[in-house]
Amino acid sequence: MRPAILTLTTDFGTEGLYVASVKGVVLGLAPDTQLVDVTHQVSPQNIREGAFLLAGLIDVFPKGTVHLAVVDPGVGTDRRLIAAAVADHWFVLPDNGLLTAVTRDRPPSGIWELVNPAYRRSPVSATFHGRDILAPAAAHLLQGGDPAELGPACTELVMLGAFEATAHADGFVGEVICRDAFGNLSTNIEAKRLHDAPAQDWTLEVAGTRIAGLGRTYADKAAGTLVALPGSTGWIEISVVNGDAGQALNVGPGTPVRLTKSSRERNAPA
Amino acid sequence: MRPAILTLTTDFGTEGLYVASVKGVVLGLAPDTQLVDVTHQVSPQNIREGAFLLAGLIDVFPKGTVHLAVVDPGVGTDRRLIAAAVADHWFVLPDNGLLTAVTRDRPPSGIWELVNPAYRRSPVSATFHGRDILAPAAAHLLQGGDPAELGPACTELVMLGAFEATAHADGFVGEVICRDAFGNLSTNIEAKRLHDAPAQDWTLEVAGTRIAGLGRTYADKAAGTLVALPGSTGWIEISVVNGDAGQALNVGPGTPVRLTKSSRERNAPA
Amino acid sequence: MRPAILTLTTDFGTEGLYVASVKGVVLGLAPDTQLVDVTHQVSPQNIREGAFLLAGLIDVFPKGTVHLAVVDPGVGTDRRLIAAAVADHWFVLPDNGLLTAVTRDRPPSGIWELVNPAYRRSPVSATFHGRDILAPAAAHLLQGGDPAELGPACTELVMLGAFEATAHADGFVGEVICRDAFGNLSTNIEAKRLHDAPAQDWTLEVAGTRIAGLGRTYADKAAGTLVALPGSTGWIEISVVNGDAGQALNVGPGTPVRLTKSSRERNAPA
Repeated sequence: MRPAILTLTTDFGTEGLYVASVKGVVLGLAPDTQLVDVTHQVSPQNIREGAFLLAGLIDVFPKGTVHLAVVDPGVGTDRRLIAAAVADHWFVLPDNGLLTAVTRDRPPSGIWELVNPAYRRSPVSATFHGRDILAPAAAHLLQGGDPAELGPACTELVMLGAFEATAHADGFVGEVICRDAFGNLSTNIEAKRLHDAPAQDWTLEVAGTRIAGLGRTYADKAAGTLVALPGSTGWIEISVVNGDAGQALNVGPGTPVRLTKSSRERNAPA
Repeated sequence: MRPAILTLTTDFGTEGLYVASVKGVVLGLAPDTQLVDVTHQVSPQNIREGAFLLAGLIDVFPKGTVHLAVVDPGVGTDRRLIAAAVADHWFVLPDNGLLTAVTRDRPPSGIWELVNPAYRRSPVSATFHGRDILAPAAAHLLQGGDPAELGPACTELVMLGAFEATAHADGFVGEVICRDAFGNLSTNIEAKRLHDAPAQDWTLEVAGTRIAGLGRTYADKAAGTLVALPGSTGWIEISVVNGDAGQALNVGPGTPVRLTKSSRERNAPA
Repeated sequence: MRPAILTLTTDFGTEGLYVASVKGVVLGLAPDTQLVDVTHQVSPQNIREGAFLLAGLIDVFPKGTVHLAVVDPGVGTDRRLIAAAVADHWFVLPDNGLLTAVTRDRPPSGIWELVNPAYRRSPVSATFHGRDILAPAAAHLLQGGDPAELGPACTELVMLGAFEATAHADGFVGEVICRDAFGNLSTNIEAKRLHDAPAQDWTLEVAGTRIAGLGRTYADKAAGTLVALPGSTGWIEISVVNGDAGQALNVGPGTPVRLTKSSRERNAPA
């Protein structure tokens, strides 16, 4: 039998006991789990960045994978903790908007609130619900347990406002969401929304700089050149060929980005 | 059969070959091991911080887990390397004080010195005993081997002086031990030692700042407020609500902390 | 049956989805894989550093291990992606010099170009061949598949020029390759090439500083002393006892290093 997979996406960092505590609790209950760290370096309490990362997991992990996520500025308040089934994957996380991007075009097939004390550590601490509530719930699902045992079904999710770039007549207004280790900047403009104009007719503006045309790969142009291109998870990215775009532009998450069709295109007959 | 779990807690960093070398040696001998990184970012050669982290593992991992730890400024000197059984967990590490906190209230049920050459790589390098001595010993225990085969039993452990905060008539004098990714500061004052006064009667002083009362959760107060509260592993922590206490106070490991009962409490009849 | 082991060595960083994407694809195809991160912090696009790290894996992992490596400034160009069998280990990586150090004294027993679309994700992205080509190929090998199914056999590898230090009549001229978490500096001078003079007769020069004699362990000398010694993977290292040599000398990868036999030795009769 194949081991069940648990991915972990958090803002815990890798310095202390947080990550290992979640894993220890899971392995005590579901010992055959295949553990995969997505990242523990989500910017502290940045739900938007966490939501963006989770959206990339369904395409690469097999069905049945359980995804545990903790970016939880509301720990200790009355925000709900939930399990959700989406596209035959499981998500176990606070209901604070983290599923905004995952569920854009895939409605959940079920949502359950994690309130059954039989699937919580006892006592539950005031500050570490990842270990005390999410980990036992994930272990239950990893063991093939019935999600309905975790608590009552719900129907609504908290959603982040303005997660995706806004469409305008001549293009999109969005923002930078993530910066990776190479300095590539992911935006919240999805490449598949750009089908109504050819790649060379788009112009991206960020931090006072204009990048003409969308490239196909980092190696299209000379080293040091700024390029905009569809990234590997389907979002428009800003890169410097063999360089660091975040550093070159001095921008990061939250910086506004505008993507505009050239006037030639805008004036062309449909 | 459930896989045996090996946790790793080191100051190796994650840049080079150290961690993978230990894992490769273990997997060559004990292929079904479930590997869990606790952290490899203990401050270089900071035994006190390593000891603090190890103390949090017994409560979250199942019995039978093997914990390998390397914070070893004495590599190449005559300090001993040992395996120790504590509360049905195994520890494999240098005998340099790393077990100080683990064994505070749990005496080891056995200690063995790792001197049997049959359970060492050959030749043993002068600088990497984690790979050459600790990894094979851990693999032996992960396979259910008899610890007595690893070397002779011992009875004494090296202990760090003044690991826990000192109790005084009106409270405790301790220090900051760790700073996590959120900037929360863990102290060496254990929450369970504060039972003789209610939470609101304690005042914490650190770096010239006074924090009145102990909170219950990060979300008790307005964003930006300094709070002191029992952390998720049982030690008093200093936090800024939705902020970074280490940065706000400009303090880190080693900074003195004082926790004092209010005079009202001290003068009250018993 | 023992699980197959996959190691990962990349410059992906640990902030985003890159590493998890590779793992998700592998686990969808080869679910029983034992995953081991070597490091994802190779300096961005530094093939030389990646090559150095890979050279240390064969000695510590069991035969049959699959090593996936991505340091790939040429992604999207026409550089080849290959699988290579070396000393009963498998390597899956771009053919850009990453195998230079692995194959110094071990010729590959086979090399195959990864062009069979049946072992690629579809469509293959322009920017993420680690996920779309290397991961499925690695999974095929982890499942015991025939490497010849991945594509045609090749005979030549791209090799980095001047990977190892140059030998001269009185010693070696090389460079610093890596700096670890302790600040130790690994050079490209292999310890086993120094057999023609005793340890005390060598003098290492780096950044205007001379270190007389080769030590055996970090603890040979007083804290703060600069030492040169054979590192745990067989290369000469520069260290500060209980300190940080990279910081003390203000040097890092690329800094020239000279190792010279004393004149006494050079003038001695053979």
